[in-house]
Amino acid sequence: MKTMQQNETVVRNGVDVTALMGAIQAISQDTTLADFVFRSENKWMDGGHNRSMIRDFYGVGSDQMREVTFTMDADEPSVLLGFDRGANPVEYILHALAACVTTTTVYHAAARGIRIDRIESKLEGNLDLRGLLAMPGATRNGYEKVVFTMKIEGSGTPEEMAEIVRFGQSHSPVFDIVSNGTMIDVRVESF
Amino acid sequence: MKTMQQNETVVRNGVDVTALMGAIQAISQDTTLADFVFRSENKWMDGGHNRSMIRDFYGVGSDQMREVTFTMDADEPSVLLGFDRGANPVEYILHALAACVTTTTVYHAAARGIRIDRIESKLEGNLDLRGLLAMPGATRNGYEKVVFTMKIEGSGTPEEMAEIVRFGQSHSPVFDIVSNGTMIDVRVESF
Repeated sequence: MKTMQQNETVVRNGVDVTALMGAIQAISQDTTLADFVFRSENKWMDGGHNRSMIRDFYGVGSDQMREVTFTMDADEPSVLLGFDRGANPVEYILHALAACVTTTTVYHAAARGIRIDRIESKLEGNLDLRGLLAMPGATRNGYEKVVFTMKIEGSGTPEEMAEIVRFGQSHSPVFDIVSNGTMIDVRVESF
Repeated sequence: MKTMQQNETVVRNGVDVTALMGAIQAISQDTTLADFVFRSENKWMDGGHNRSMIRDFYGVGSDQMREVTFTMDADEPSVLLGFDRGANPVEYILHALAACVTTTTVYHAAARGIRIDRIESKLEGNLDLRGLLAMPGATRNGYEKVVFTMKIEGSGTPEEMAEIVRFGQSHSPVFDIVSNGTMIDVRVESF
């Protein structure tokens, strides 16, 4: 017979903490449930314009469909010979970084009982265009450095809030991907 | 007196090659024109949902406004305790990678006189969720590996088309950012 206690779920910071704890428990019993494969398809449209579609992924032991298909357009501004039909690829990197450190922080704060009231971030990445243009002189093709300033407010002291951000940063998948580098196996095929 | 010849512009693969060559010429005379700073702002909404806005950047010597403000929503699927209000951060990384290698390939092909007819890519990234969850056993928090399969068709032989993709890959800012790693300076502040 179920009691009220057993039916209660704790939702904190918009995160179902009961489900989060259940997931950790399930993975600790069957570690294959932690194996995820994320997928994306991209199609070149014209010039600097291309479009990605995200429909499904593999996780918790089987293929999973997203509820909707996500479409993302990339393009360049006019000074980079595009027509502003979307953010550009390096701008998407800044979004992915902010999004991942924010989510990882919010989830771990929820698990620890810390209430988050507000998080806002600003990111800036410096890039020397000579790398992309195959001109001599650039130290690298990508960002020389990203400065990521996050403001956070919640139930902890400023020190506790800063500490939960550090914990989020040090467990964020995108922070790891970008800061530590990731093996990319590029395979070129004909149609 | 202008002649027809001087007014002609070459547009190939949707890229204004005349403007591209002009930009390279201008940067070779004033290398500060190659200094770009891309910017993004992100705001946490609820749970795994947050939103980035991209409005402006610095480049070719001054601040530049995008023609429109780009808004991007990140969220998680239900098995990751979200509500599918957007692609998730690691999926945005796959989009940024595909978009950047595609654009870099298309631009350099245009400069070389190679016509591109079609480019389509599929990307997959493997991730062990135990990293994000701060559970023992994961080799890292981010993608263990990304497999990036690009199909390309154009005016060159399959070997020439593969070579231009390799050139695009080796000059793509996002490919460099992700494969070689990038310094990220995270600063935490109170409101």
